[in-house]
Amino acid sequence: MTPTTARLSDADLAAIDAWWRAANYLTAGQIYLMGNPMLREPLRPEHIKPRLLGHWGTSPGLNLLWAHLNRVIIARDLDVLFVTGPGHGGPAILANTWLEGTYSQVYPEVGRDEAGMGRLFRRFSFPGGVPSHVAPETPGSIHEGGELGYSLAHAYGAAFDNPGLTVACVIGDGEAETGPLAASWLSQRFLDPRTDGAVLPILHLNGYKIANPAVLARIPDEDLLSLMRGHGFDPIEVEGCTPQDVHRELAAALDRAFDRLSEIRWWAGASGHRPRPPMIVLRTPKGWTGPVEVDGVPVENTFRAHQVPLPGVRENPAHLAQLEAWLRSYGPEELFGPDAHHGRLIPARPMSANPRANGGALLRPLALPPLEPYAVAVEEPGASDVEGTRPAGEWLRDVIAANPENFRLFGPDEVASNRLGAVFEVTDRRFNAAIVPGDDHLAPDGRVMEVLSEHLCQGWLEGYLLTGRHGLFTSYEAFIHIVDSMFNQHAKWLKSTLDIPWRRPIASLNYLLSSHVWRQDHNGFSHQDPGFIDHVVNKKAEVIRVYLPPDANTLLSTMDHCLASRHYVNVIVAGKQPQPAWLSLEDARDHCRRGVGIWEWASNDEGEPDVVMACAGDVPTLETLAAVGILRAHVPGLRVRVVNVVDLMRLEPDSEHPHGMPDAQFDALFTTDKPVVFAYHGYPWLIHRLTYRRTNHDNIHVRGYKEEGTTTTPFDMVMLNDLDRFHLVMDVIDRVPGLAVREAALRQRMYDARQRARAYTREHGEDAPEIKDWRWTP
Amino acid sequence: MTPTTARLSDADLAAIDAWWRAANYLTAGQIYLMGNPMLREPLRPEHIKPRLLGHWGTSPGLNLLWAHLNRVIIARDLDVLFVTGPGHGGPAILANTWLEGTYSQVYPEVGRDEAGMGRLFRRFSFPGGVPSHVAPETPGSIHEGGELGYSLAHAYGAAFDNPGLTVACVIGDGEAETGPLAASWLSQRFLDPRTDGAVLPILHLNGYKIANPAVLARIPDEDLLSLMRGHGFDPIEVEGCTPQDVHRELAAALDRAFDRLSEIRWWAGASGHRPRPPMIVLRTPKGWTGPVEVDGVPVENTFRAHQVPLPGVRENPAHLAQLEAWLRSYGPEELFGPDAHHGRLIPARPMSANPRANGGALLRPLALPPLEPYAVAVEEPGASDVEGTRPAGEWLRDVIAANPENFRLFGPDEVASNRLGAVFEVTDRRFNAAIVPGDDHLAPDGRVMEVLSEHLCQGWLEGYLLTGRHGLFTSYEAFIHIVDSMFNQHAKWLKSTLDIPWRRPIASLNYLLSSHVWRQDHNGFSHQDPGFIDHVVNKKAEVIRVYLPPDANTLLSTMDHCLASRHYVNVIVAGKQPQPAWLSLEDARDHCRRGVGIWEWASNDEGEPDVVMACAGDVPTLETLAAVGILRAHVPGLRVRVVNVVDLMRLEPDSEHPHGMPDAQFDALFTTDKPVVFAYHGYPWLIHRLTYRRTNHDNIHVRGYKEEGTTTTPFDMVMLNDLDRFHLVMDVIDRVPGLAVREAALRQRMYDARQRARAYTREHGEDAPEIKDWRWTP
Repeated sequence: MTPTTARLSDADLAAIDAWWRAANYLTAGQIYLMGNPMLREPLRPEHIKPRLLGHWGTSPGLNLLWAHLNRVIIARDLDVLFVTGPGHGGPAILANTWLEGTYSQVYPEVGRDEAGMGRLFRRFSFPGGVPSHVAPETPGSIHEGGELGYSLAHAYGAAFDNPGLTVACVIGDGEAETGPLAASWLSQRFLDPRTDGAVLPILHLNGYKIANPAVLARIPDEDLLSLMRGHGFDPIEVEGCTPQDVHRELAAALDRAFDRLSEIRWWAGASGHRPRPPMIVLRTPKGWTGPVEVDGVPVENTFRAHQVPLPGVRENPAHLAQLEAWLRSYGPEELFGPDAHHGRLIPARPMSANPRANGGALLRPLALPPLEPYAVAVEEPGASDVEGTRPAGEWLRDVIAANPENFRLFGPDEVASNRLGAVFEVTDRRFNAAIVPGDDHLAPDGRVMEVLSEHLCQGWLEGYLLTGRHGLFTSYEAFIHIVDSMFNQHAKWLKSTLDIPWRRPIASLNYLLSSHVWRQDHNGFSHQDPGFIDHVVNKKAEVIRVYLPPDANTLLSTMDHCLASRHYVNVIVAGKQPQPAWLSLEDARDHCRRGVGIWEWASNDEGEPDVVMACAGDVPTLETLAAVGILRAHVPGLRVRVVNVVDLMRLEPDSEHPHGMPDAQFDALFTTDKPVVFAYHGYPWLIHRLTYRRTNHDNIHVRGYKEEGTTTTPFDMVMLNDLDRFHLVMDVIDRVPGLAVREAALRQRMYDARQRARAYTREHGEDAPEIKDWRWTP
Repeated sequence: MTPTTARLSDADLAAIDAWWRAANYLTAGQIYLMGNPMLREPLRPEHIKPRLLGHWGTSPGLNLLWAHLNRVIIARDLDVLFVTGPGHGGPAILANTWLEGTYSQVYPEVGRDEAGMGRLFRRFSFPGGVPSHVAPETPGSIHEGGELGYSLAHAYGAAFDNPGLTVACVIGDGEAETGPLAASWLSQRFLDPRTDGAVLPILHLNGYKIANPAVLARIPDEDLLSLMRGHGFDPIEVEGCTPQDVHRELAAALDRAFDRLSEIRWWAGASGHRPRPPMIVLRTPKGWTGPVEVDGVPVENTFRAHQVPLPGVRENPAHLAQLEAWLRSYGPEELFGPDAHHGRLIPARPMSANPRANGGALLRPLALPPLEPYAVAVEEPGASDVEGTRPAGEWLRDVIAANPENFRLFGPDEVASNRLGAVFEVTDRRFNAAIVPGDDHLAPDGRVMEVLSEHLCQGWLEGYLLTGRHGLFTSYEAFIHIVDSMFNQHAKWLKSTLDIPWRRPIASLNYLLSSHVWRQDHNGFSHQDPGFIDHVVNKKAEVIRVYLPPDANTLLSTMDHCLASRHYVNVIVAGKQPQPAWLSLEDARDHCRRGVGIWEWASNDEGEPDVVMACAGDVPTLETLAAVGILRAHVPGLRVRVVNVVDLMRLEPDSEHPHGMPDAQFDALFTTDKPVVFAYHGYPWLIHRLTYRRTNHDNIHVRGYKEEGTTTTPFDMVMLNDLDRFHLVMDVIDRVPGLAVREAALRQRMYDARQRARAYTREHGEDAPEIKDWRWTP
């Protein structure tokens, strides 16, 4: 059953070499040429692009791997997805997709002929054309390789629940120095060969970065092999600078690797010795086959080959001649002539057309259970306390059960502590290292992915979503900043794909941030940071959404909405601690549908408020309702309107965000001239940023987190940031005309209550029982 | 010369065990007790804290290591700094600092006696007390261990340029899963044993995280050892659960490790075989010596020992009794009685009082060369172009030369490409792996730290600064988001230390972001993100500063100011591309001193502007001045005022930021009623956020980056975001009363010029020469 490894035939060798040379020619052509693509005439300056952009250095290695993988794919009828870690090698990947014909299928204006070749060259890194890196525009890709660090995590995410698929992941030796990549080697300990696909990491050591050698290319060989063995792999080394030798070695290495992957597939599920997965270490010269020297300085196999090896081609006749000689060295007329024989290396299932790389086209909607059985019964708003995430956990349990192979839950180590533990009634935590008695819901095929690396959680989830599946990432609010930059890149990917017709919308990337700033009182200042929301709203309005459900049923409704949505990043912030349930499921759904609304049952303004008490977030809602309770009990004539915001983007004008409100609607809610006291979950200035264009903006007074905190009690935390009920009452008294004088005594009582609460906490180490007397009364 | 390793004496063994038990007692006492610290009376519920907070699980391992390191420090007269990766083990570290007497020196109210012990217990994780983690408040620490991931990078940063120092770095097996930690093992390849101190990594495998096993504790032993060898270390294993055996093994392991470190010190500089540095793998039970079972469920050596192993002590008499038995098992009366013999383990130079941990107290000011020799001559503003960072590079070269052992430059791989290459005239890139002919300025003792990991650059620099030195981090603007969360933690550390009198201010953390959003046109969308500024300004105003120098001399002056400053995070964004020099050094200094000012030479308003053209950032300044040139040439009667902002925080009210302007000053610059067209480097809404309280806010119209970009030309990039000179002129015409009608023809010309520029770029692949005709004319 195991395919046997034969010596590379001369015909295969010739075809591989031809493919490689063709791809190298096409790569250099994209970097340099805007005319004369086949060199039918002598090269002249006007054929050269005015701005020479692109990365030559990494490209020959990528082309080499693509050619060789094609041979293996054909010989073994494999389903392979290619992930390009060194994504700067964009022209190389484009060259291969064009050779396979996929590029012309996707972009019919760029045919698989000489005119098409000219267009392929011209549009690369050209205004109005395509980016210089592997990008969303690149067929067959799920990975923009610009930032570096995420290729291997993406590869594993793509392999999960895709048995039969092999993800060939090229890792550059520069990328290998990054933290996220260094952690990604652990992914192998979370892959189940029975139910997942395989990942073949290919560490490409071409030795240099922009100006420096790569560290892994310079450590002793025994150290490098130890490292890979330590990560659980069986490394296979290929090294050389003579093409024919490297072709033979690499072909043998790939045969060994795929033999081993077959063994593992056969082993899977059986007992006995588990074969170690293979990985390949490939050492070839940077900028291989390019200019050896330029102006007397070595270029090939040095850092100088990183980008454009011959810079002054338009102005410098010697450079122009050197470029022409270099390009002609590949023999374009032979390569692209009638006798071209690299065509036999086009597989029936080419990597450039792997359907997994356009995950949206494969996307199956999630089966989402109706919410009713999970909802909390609410007789009267605020009458009873519920752990907000617990019903969501029960619902997620049934989402997992109803969607085998199509949904996973990701997080550092907090599913249970975030009160989502119900999911363990139907599945386990994924683990593929030793499992011992006493371990809690740990299994090789669990659907809960817990690893103490936000980078891995995010990278795996992205790979999973981009290949057409669904997922949820739950984490600490403060530490989600660890993946700020990964979020950026994913949001940019989503934004770019909106303009690419052949890319179909994928499932949204959903964050549930349950351990949030107001309930990190026990961990202290280092765990208190609500700024991820601010980071997210900098990205394009079309692809980002932020939700702050105030209670258990609104959280359920929000989750249901987010998991059904497409092509967004949804950020949900909702605490796991017991908190009042305000809305019945029906009311919650209604509220979520509108995103923002007046809570009539808490208001007494009859359309003519003296003050608007706005709130967004569970803790701010709790404090606001308590303040409203105090005001209504102690300032009887005061007309208070309560506005709750669950969909933060509703606050923006509709010209700025698809969820934004027209001015008339905003004015109807927040008035045009009455004071608004706004209790907000995060940094207060975000509310100003979202509302500065509104008529009543000057009257909006926002309380939120102002970067004050420590290890203390929950109520002390809100007091430290002036978000507490007492301070909100004082804010109203200070802002509603006439109240300052009339309610001076109440203001003093509030001030005293704060002082007493502070002192009590410092003496007794817990919140004063008295606080509970100042509350919302249903 | 090498200290010989002797068998552990019985006296040493007894002292170590006593220290360990004492520290364990003090750890548990901090978690539980608010009275009866020495258990002089039977334990009652009122002795127990109402909120039980703290992490027991990791603490016995930390205490064990501290006790053993003390023996070695005394025996060998060592200078050791302790870095606590599992920083949740705060009570353990506090216990050891109290045992050494340092805690009482720093906090005299907490004496080294029974009353002091009571205060030590009570204040831990208590409102008004100290945080639950290792934190700035902890003597001897440079590392807040809450977020996890940065311990080893901090350790290496502390060791750089500190020959004679050994940094013992405990890495938790949870932390070991994070990306930054996984990359940090590479640090050893950047340490020079001749001029740097040593780092002894101690990987502590207690096996569990919150609910999961730790991956590295569950992979095959041979894999783990391979991994450590692959990172270049010689691992020494210690494993056990019988205290006496572990004491003997660990003592021998530490002796071996320090013998090896001595060998390396002797070897350093000599030729011949280089000894491999040691590291220790320590396997001991999680929550060792704590409750074995609680309510019939195993706790010791399981994930259940992670935080508070006995939860219900105040309410549950059985738990209370179990706690009392546990605490008494250590023998507090013997441990803290007159015959206590752990006292002999207090070293003359205790780790808790290592002066390096209070780096501000050791800080030597940098010798900063006068700027004059580096300044660009400016006869007329904007008459000539200069690469903005090149003079800064020459100045940095001389900063490096003048401050050996006190300053380093950090960055992923971009010092040369950021035009700072002059530094290589006096130093090299640091590298401690193989160096081969053709490498460019690579040496084991270079002072430029380049590694393709922003996490490592940031972590090393933090460790270097926190131990009393200076540095600069230069990076891509978009990818500095990779360290958003590390920046958060450092800014929180700085904010917290402002309130700790014994902590002295340290050198500022300086970022120079030279490859910025407007000059990533060749890399494309993935490299375009100016949001780090937005992220930074969420942190406390007292510790953050943002500078946008518009040209070479203002950059010089800004760098000079930042490198001399203390206890800030300074973010400088300034491009490396050729750009006009606007100000002479004298004018630049003056402008930087004020932070914002009217450029009289570009204005013609004579105190009565029709429009204010404001700009912040080099590219926005270039476009603004070009627009002003157009307006002054074509709309002669128009009175234009040009305001340039170099210190962004000047825009905030003085009530919000120490650099903020009073309203009167703001109004004098920006008027109270005239249109302001503000060209800003980053996301435009930040300017609104900073100015929404100002009188004239409704008239401020901001252009900036609105998340549009691709691989194109520089001018096309500004056009894509409506920040170009033509659009700015149109904005003025649209906003100044009367101009829309009068200057309709000019507006149309601007519109046409944009259209032509766009079309030219798409056809020719470069910016239209015509653009240069529409410019600022000196």
